[in-house]
Amino acid sequence: MLIVMRHGATDDEIRRVVAVIEELGYRASPMPGAQRVAVGLVGNDGRVDASRLEGLPGVQEVIHVSKPYKQVSREWKEDSTVVRLPGGIAVGGTDVVTIAGPCSVESERQILEAARQVKDAGAVILRGGAWKPRTSPYSFQGLGPPGLKLLAKAREETGLLICTEAMDPEGVGYVAEVADIIQIGARNMQNYTLLRELGHARKPVLLKRGISATIEEWLLSAEYVLSGGNPNVILCERGIRTFETTTRFTLDLNAVPVLKKLTHLPVVVDPSHGTGHWEYVESMALAAVAAGADGLLIEVHPKPEEALSDGPQSLKPERFAALMTRLRKVAEAVDRDL
Amino acid sequence: MLIVMRHGATDDEIRRVVAVIEELGYRASPMPGAQRVAVGLVGNDGRVDASRLEGLPGVQEVIHVSKPYKQVSREWKEDSTVVRLPGGIAVGGTDVVTIAGPCSVESERQILEAARQVKDAGAVILRGGAWKPRTSPYSFQGLGPPGLKLLAKAREETGLLICTEAMDPEGVGYVAEVADIIQIGARNMQNYTLLRELGHARKPVLLKRGISATIEEWLLSAEYVLSGGNPNVILCERGIRTFETTTRFTLDLNAVPVLKKLTHLPVVVDPSHGTGHWEYVESMALAAVAAGADGLLIEVHPKPEEALSDGPQSLKPERFAALMTRLRKVAEAVDRDL
Amino acid sequence: MLIVMRHGATDDEIRRVVAVIEELGYRASPMPGAQRVAVGLVGNDGRVDASRLEGLPGVQEVIHVSKPYKQVSREWKEDSTVVRLPGGIAVGGTDVVTIAGPCSVESERQILEAARQVKDAGAVILRGGAWKPRTSPYSFQGLGPPGLKLLAKAREETGLLICTEAMDPEGVGYVAEVADIIQIGARNMQNYTLLRELGHARKPVLLKRGISATIEEWLLSAEYVLSGGNPNVILCERGIRTFETTTRFTLDLNAVPVLKKLTHLPVVVDPSHGTGHWEYVESMALAAVAAGADGLLIEVHPKPEEALSDGPQSLKPERFAALMTRLRKVAEAVDRDL
Amino acid sequence: MLIVMRHGATDDEIRRVVAVIEELGYRASPMPGAQRVAVGLVGNDGRVDASRLEGLPGVQEVIHVSKPYKQVSREWKEDSTVVRLPGGIAVGGTDVVTIAGPCSVESERQILEAARQVKDAGAVILRGGAWKPRTSPYSFQGLGPPGLKLLAKAREETGLLICTEAMDPEGVGYVAEVADIIQIGARNMQNYTLLRELGHARKPVLLKRGISATIEEWLLSAEYVLSGGNPNVILCERGIRTFETTTRFTLDLNAVPVLKKLTHLPVVVDPSHGTGHWEYVESMALAAVAAGADGLLIEVHPKPEEALSDGPQSLKPERFAALMTRLRKVAEAVDRDL
Repeated sequence: MLIVMRHGATDDEIRRVVAVIEELGYRASPMPGAQRVAVGLVGNDGRVDASRLEGLPGVQEVIHVSKPYKQVSREWKEDSTVVRLPGGIAVGGTDVVTIAGPCSVESERQILEAARQVKDAGAVILRGGAWKPRTSPYSFQGLGPPGLKLLAKAREETGLLICTEAMDPEGVGYVAEVADIIQIGARNMQNYTLLRELGHARKPVLLKRGISATIEEWLLSAEYVLSGGNPNVILCERGIRTFETTTRFTLDLNAVPVLKKLTHLPVVVDPSHGTGHWEYVESMALAAVAAGADGLLIEVHPKPEEALSDGPQSLKPERFAALMTRLRKVAEAVDRDL
Repeated sequence: MLIVMRHGATDDEIRRVVAVIEELGYRASPMPGAQRVAVGLVGNDGRVDASRLEGLPGVQEVIHVSKPYKQVSREWKEDSTVVRLPGGIAVGGTDVVTIAGPCSVESERQILEAARQVKDAGAVILRGGAWKPRTSPYSFQGLGPPGLKLLAKAREETGLLICTEAMDPEGVGYVAEVADIIQIGARNMQNYTLLRELGHARKPVLLKRGISATIEEWLLSAEYVLSGGNPNVILCERGIRTFETTTRFTLDLNAVPVLKKLTHLPVVVDPSHGTGHWEYVESMALAAVAAGADGLLIEVHPKPEEALSDGPQSLKPERFAALMTRLRKVAEAVDRDL
Repeated sequence: MLIVMRHGATDDEIRRVVAVIEELGYRASPMPGAQRVAVGLVGNDGRVDASRLEGLPGVQEVIHVSKPYKQVSREWKEDSTVVRLPGGIAVGGTDVVTIAGPCSVESERQILEAARQVKDAGAVILRGGAWKPRTSPYSFQGLGPPGLKLLAKAREETGLLICTEAMDPEGVGYVAEVADIIQIGARNMQNYTLLRELGHARKPVLLKRGISATIEEWLLSAEYVLSGGNPNVILCERGIRTFETTTRFTLDLNAVPVLKKLTHLPVVVDPSHGTGHWEYVESMALAAVAAGADGLLIEVHPKPEEALSDGPQSLKPERFAALMTRLRKVAEAVDRDL
Repeated sequence: MLIVMRHGATDDEIRRVVAVIEELGYRASPMPGAQRVAVGLVGNDGRVDASRLEGLPGVQEVIHVSKPYKQVSREWKEDSTVVRLPGGIAVGGTDVVTIAGPCSVESERQILEAARQVKDAGAVILRGGAWKPRTSPYSFQGLGPPGLKLLAKAREETGLLICTEAMDPEGVGYVAEVADIIQIGARNMQNYTLLRELGHARKPVLLKRGISATIEEWLLSAEYVLSGGNPNVILCERGIRTFETTTRFTLDLNAVPVLKKLTHLPVVVDPSHGTGHWEYVESMALAAVAAGADGLLIEVHPKPEEALSDGPQSLKPERFAALMTRLRKVAEAVDRDL
């Protein structure tokens, strides 16, 4: 950490910065420059709270040289984390894992049909929400607990694993009983009460990126879960908010190589939410695998035009099957299996 | 609502759109154009779920003519809402209300000192967090329930009202016992479990804008609270995320006149979080009042350089007092009182 | 085009809107709704100037149903444009075309060495700037005309085609004499004097997306060139500005399938500027090809650590050669050749 | 400048960084940390080109401690620049200066009428474009040279000074003959050929912020003009591009106090382009003056509903007159004159 002093900061002000650094238990290394003095904080273990330093008189700016996260960092743990699931499924290894299914569980018939269809096409995990965070209070909010029961039934019938969303600490308990992966939506990426609860959960967590979360903030949210005791976090890029409106969000595939450098956690990509239009899902799914993603989260609905949510971004089963064929070729081209 | 068909959509596809609109209980009005057909949905009461229509074959785009919110809209209720608080304080009337105090409650001495200082300068409501949502799990997270007790004590001693944050549904219960206004932070603006709980709370809610929330999404979050039964919502602009980095966020004062047009709810502005630097707080506070804000939320700390959170954006008490003097003049210039 | 009237607009105001539409030569179709009246403008040929309508009393909003561009649109010309270059090279056909080389021409030795290296690896077009738009007036600004001569020499020696940037109308003349493709940088995407000049140029234009240009604005800039008489425009996605800072820009690969739907023009991708770090170039280049890009623009420098500009995002020649091998496999997987 | 080495950088790599720094003529100060080494570059005069260092092996990141601009900086020149115009008008002094008029010059009658109306209301400078940069090639592009003549006539008749836009180097010559201030539009903020031309112009320049320009980039564009020999630059905030769509752009008033701290140049605000809707212009104009702006640029049209460009954001003359009365009160409240 580098504490940059203002042009003309007094010796007293510099001494005070040095004193506070030492008080916090680190070493201070002042560095005079042509225009101003900077004071290095040496020994940063990723837990320094910059607030104490930013407010000191004469301080212009605090520059972070070390990253503020620790356990999620690849510097802390060099080997990639492989999240192991029942049935030998692993996220973060050589295989590219496909999680597919409808946005929300709507009925027994719908979810069982979807499950069979995505299984036939080669998916290994079924997605489907029992609770849906919706921008408007007047939109369909999910079936709740009965939706979870239908997911359990789909697993029984097809052998697919289940990935479904928890929206609050109470929901984590319900979901953890049925799901193989607990999904946390973009709007809850900084719901810290929820993140702390997930630290104690005994199921892996799929943590979606907030729509305007920097990669650093996202990793800090993952750090909440890891530091709470749960090492099994899968990061899911799902599009960020930009000025562009031809897509619902801007799927940020750059996040894939950036995360691969910064963290050991696996990374999956959701091109359905990321683009918001089924027509763009295929191209972006292929691109995600080429970029190095460990998995895909894709919305597939038996009848998108009757979907209670996210119809416009859902693939029809036959399109999904065709996509899987193309995905396999690209996966092979980058030395992965699907 | 206007359903725009693709160039070359078939008659069957158009008939299907018409049928679905009628099935939803509205009237359909097809409108042939030179390049494509559009179908108007007539009778929209703000509760149409567009998903059903967006997914239909041949549909290119669904354009929203009516707003998706209702109870918060000025078209629904023309008169401005005035949120009435104990002691005759009102937010949304002629007075510009000042809410001031430290980011977090740190100790009895700190909060009582801050309370006396902001009261002397003319503030009428004390702010201070007992729980703090922090990006890093290693940062100070607030005192919790003991912090609430200290706030209660500060009220007793100074007569100031209390505005403090609830981070989860459980917290709403605790906070509602002590606070006069329940603050909801930016990260929780779309925490729907929390918003539903606030619909039943019997205290006014100060709802901060999410850092990348559109004004429409923000109003829909307020709609959750109103439609749950609580009409007393105060909107608080606190800066949005943009590419600019000289300020921590970009305080969006444009939101003030935009909200005044779209909604009857009162609007306050938080220039401390909005800019992230105490040096810019004064200018932006003056600007907020000139733009028509109904109140200000300002961080003041007896000793910003020792603050456990948000020191760099906190004003010293003497600067806050000087600001209040300047604010009074600007308030008068736009026919308001402070 | 749909002109949405305010809630409570008078009959006179509506009649006036109808009159102005008819005055502009189109047909008006009023459509009464539950909350407000909307007036459809029928016959829009993509040339209606909405300004006249937006300012009329009683008008709330003008909604564009048709696109404001015409000649670049796939509705106007369904077949993909293939830009044909000397030596049988074509951009927009089955082949994925690679344009590679240093950011700027620095010396004869540097550009000839670079040319040979990228040619050996399989590139068919050499990039390199003789003029460089630089944010700071104190940065290296390019060699100017001597740089162009060195590019001509590199072509002679290697047979590679040349793609280089023109920064102003005067520069178009110089560049067109030497270059096979005239590159227009992101900062000049809306330099209309320059775009008009390009309409008369007899060389193809590679038009980079402005760093905050919407896809619609980008297509309108291309429309300037096409409507000026030059049909050979290649669009180049090179990253947009967002809040994320781990990458220099956010390379928006979503633009590839979106453009493929909206326009017949070829699309290439520049992962070097898009990410700003050579470490991310490989992943994003592979992803671009998987997403359907018609070509790549990649910075390669014989010695990136000595580059006068853009060193950090330049690949070393051996890394570029390795990338080309991987690119070929991905291209084949999506039925393209490299 | 601080060169942060990767975790595990070798001694050789560090020595090389030191060598390059010394080669560039500065002093190197290595600073070992717990996780990595950082090397300080001492003596930075704002002209170091970081590219040479960013590309060196073992370098993780280059952090800029000093600002990359110099002559525009308040550290370089502490006293505020006052741009002096004919007739004793000064921008950057105690007076808040109002520049008002139509978006474009449309006819003699229109511009003379507008000139008289804004003069009567108290404006001192007339705005109006003879050339208009337009997103679409099919929109009205301005009258060109005849528009300039009409502006000259308006000055003769009313005594108002003239502020009008130049779009290219050639245009600077034309405009400089007639205008008292040469306006540079947002799209041309990084048109470096144009900026260099302005360095030789003998008229003050009003430099609008690019729609996605950081404040640092904006100041670097001003640095082009100052370093070219023209010290009279007025910065004009006119709204930046964000995700919010209720306003055309997001007028960033935070830029006012930020610029006042960083630079000695005067700052004016354009609430008309910044918001895009006349209804929001009044609130934001008042806010701009309260925030400390040195002037305002406001679109006023005798008949906004007939304007050939920007009608929706233009004020009617009577509204402008009423606004001027309110502005005077707010100006006084912050110890300025209007």
